[in-house]
Amino acid sequence: MSAPLRVDLGDRSYDIHIGTGLIDRASLFDRHVRGRTAAIVTNETVAPLFAPRLESTLAAAGARVLRIVLPDGEAHKTWTTLDRVFEQLLLAQADRRTVLVALGGGVVGDITGFAAATYQRGIAHVQVPTTLLAQVDSSVGGKTAINHPLGKNMIGAFHQPLMVVADMDTLATLAPREYAAGLAEVAKYGAIHDIEFLSWIEKNADALLAREPAALEKAVRRSCEIKALIVARDERESGARALLNFGHTFGHAIESAAGYGTILHGEAVAIGMALAARFSARQGRIPEADAHRLASLLARLGLPVAPPRFPPGVWLEYMGRDKKNEAGRITLILLDALGTGAVVKDAPLPEIEAFLAAG
Amino acid sequence: MSAPLRVDLGDRSYDIHIGTGLIDRASLFDRHVRGRTAAIVTNETVAPLFAPRLESTLAAAGARVLRIVLPDGEAHKTWTTLDRVFEQLLLAQADRRTVLVALGGGVVGDITGFAAATYQRGIAHVQVPTTLLAQVDSSVGGKTAINHPLGKNMIGAFHQPLMVVADMDTLATLAPREYAAGLAEVAKYGAIHDIEFLSWIEKNADALLAREPAALEKAVRRSCEIKALIVARDERESGARALLNFGHTFGHAIESAAGYGTILHGEAVAIGMALAARFSARQGRIPEADAHRLASLLARLGLPVAPPRFPPGVWLEYMGRDKKNEAGRITLILLDALGTGAVVKDAPLPEIEAFLAAG
Repeated sequence: MSAPLRVDLGDRSYDIHIGTGLIDRASLFDRHVRGRTAAIVTNETVAPLFAPRLESTLAAAGARVLRIVLPDGEAHKTWTTLDRVFEQLLLAQADRRTVLVALGGGVVGDITGFAAATYQRGIAHVQVPTTLLAQVDSSVGGKTAINHPLGKNMIGAFHQPLMVVADMDTLATLAPREYAAGLAEVAKYGAIHDIEFLSWIEKNADALLAREPAALEKAVRRSCEIKALIVARDERESGARALLNFGHTFGHAIESAAGYGTILHGEAVAIGMALAARFSARQGRIPEADAHRLASLLARLGLPVAPPRFPPGVWLEYMGRDKKNEAGRITLILLDALGTGAVVKDAPLPEIEAFLAAG
Repeated sequence: MSAPLRVDLGDRSYDIHIGTGLIDRASLFDRHVRGRTAAIVTNETVAPLFAPRLESTLAAAGARVLRIVLPDGEAHKTWTTLDRVFEQLLLAQADRRTVLVALGGGVVGDITGFAAATYQRGIAHVQVPTTLLAQVDSSVGGKTAINHPLGKNMIGAFHQPLMVVADMDTLATLAPREYAAGLAEVAKYGAIHDIEFLSWIEKNADALLAREPAALEKAVRRSCEIKALIVARDERESGARALLNFGHTFGHAIESAAGYGTILHGEAVAIGMALAARFSARQGRIPEADAHRLASLLARLGLPVAPPRFPPGVWLEYMGRDKKNEAGRITLILLDALGTGAVVKDAPLPEIEAFLAAG
């Protein structure tokens, strides 16, 4: 294990540990859980794979260990599921010194983080992401949320973890589609911030698809570095952090209109990035060839890039609910170059509409 | 209107405005709501009394105004009610610049504050408390919450308002029992922090019961000053802030065991304060006469002081769920003198049990 990555947020700073065999390492957890209740929050799929190991580790680190198992899937990122966490904690008389340990993908991480943000007005939590997507995205940056029937991630909080433990071992069991969805976010960091990293991904696409540990660790580390850098600049998402939403405005509209759970978040983001790159080209911000280059990479990583055929009204209706919008204007993340994202606060609605209608 | 009271919390500092005719003063609201959506969150009882006036004021201050009306009562301080706020905001496409304006008592304030803490991961809010209890207690300090079937205020967040507007005009319509419940918290500030204020309350009990504006304004101002002082020392309730819970550990147990809504919060706190003072005397911390003096004042203010007859197991079961407890020990706020509260972190359970059994 190499040195942890530091996310620099003043008194809310924390470390991201990246490596193999980490969920068995009691010394990592010791200072956060000794003498406390540690409640593992996980789902039905992940629990049999990793919960027993993590329980042993936490017990060895001196914690009283609880296990809370949630149903699997984005469709369960709801109040009902969150309330199950609260109920289990209250039944176990878990006090304010309790530490929640999120063991799972983005949904588990988001629910657990929001539970930690709001249980007894805020307790501590640790993220142990077990999907590539969660390792490079949702476990870093302190965004937590549940979905509302009227919009994705509409109810939530900013709440930083005590630490993140990204164990490459947990990625071996991921379904290929889930894994590819994580690679979409990896490619995103290259596209918005680091053309050299994007080129590295292109050169190492086969190694990444084969899940070679060295390539994986490098991809996760560089992704987290870029995310940590952007989050440290703008913890509460007032400016630069919006860059991280490259592909997400279109992507969220696709997820919402399709109904949660029918398309993976990373897949929707891949389509969204391909669209945003094409629209950037249409606006004269980047050459058409660069938009093609990004779409080709995404396709090679096993991701969809062709948009679904919604009427433009549907696109705009769902895009209009995006949290980054202010006073009815649409904020869109575009590219000024491959490797350089741009936050466009007042994107031209008629042109977006025409672009989407043309398909 | 005299100068506002400042609650000093660094970049989360805010003003409490105390006076008469304040909800008609557009200039107070202007800088917080101009060019934004202002959503008044209120209840069925308060809406017809004050919502139209506040709506005019907010419109004059340049806001797009929404009104969200909730059912009245502690029994509705639930997820279901909170979700109604979210739903209305989402249907109105309220964005992150929206300001929620809590118009009502403690329940409206707590729900609105928590809605603001979690809608789109956090938006701004203003508190316009319309009960004495809310003016001197729940609108100051940033605590927000909803109840869980397994415990009161168990789900919540710390979220400071942009400002608090305590308008004495709104107290004229309060039912006598509600009004007395507020006086319980006023007396609490004297008991834990300021013997001179306690004496002032004793001398001015008739004026307070008659709701004379000058006496009221002084009582609200001094109460808020004391609360603001204590909150500024300890925003996240790690130490000194626990003092504010004088009477609340017993009080919460009374509320929970009796079922929410059958006894008012302030009434339960009055009984809890009388008990805590008597227990302080039993422990040799204060003379018995001082415990009598506090109980007499509370009774004179129209408050109950005699505890319900629960079996001791019931007391301890409900006290065991208090958020201030750590690792099974009971934290209790006692008196070292009238005017001086003490946070007792490891209160002697067997003695508490014997004391409560003796009744």
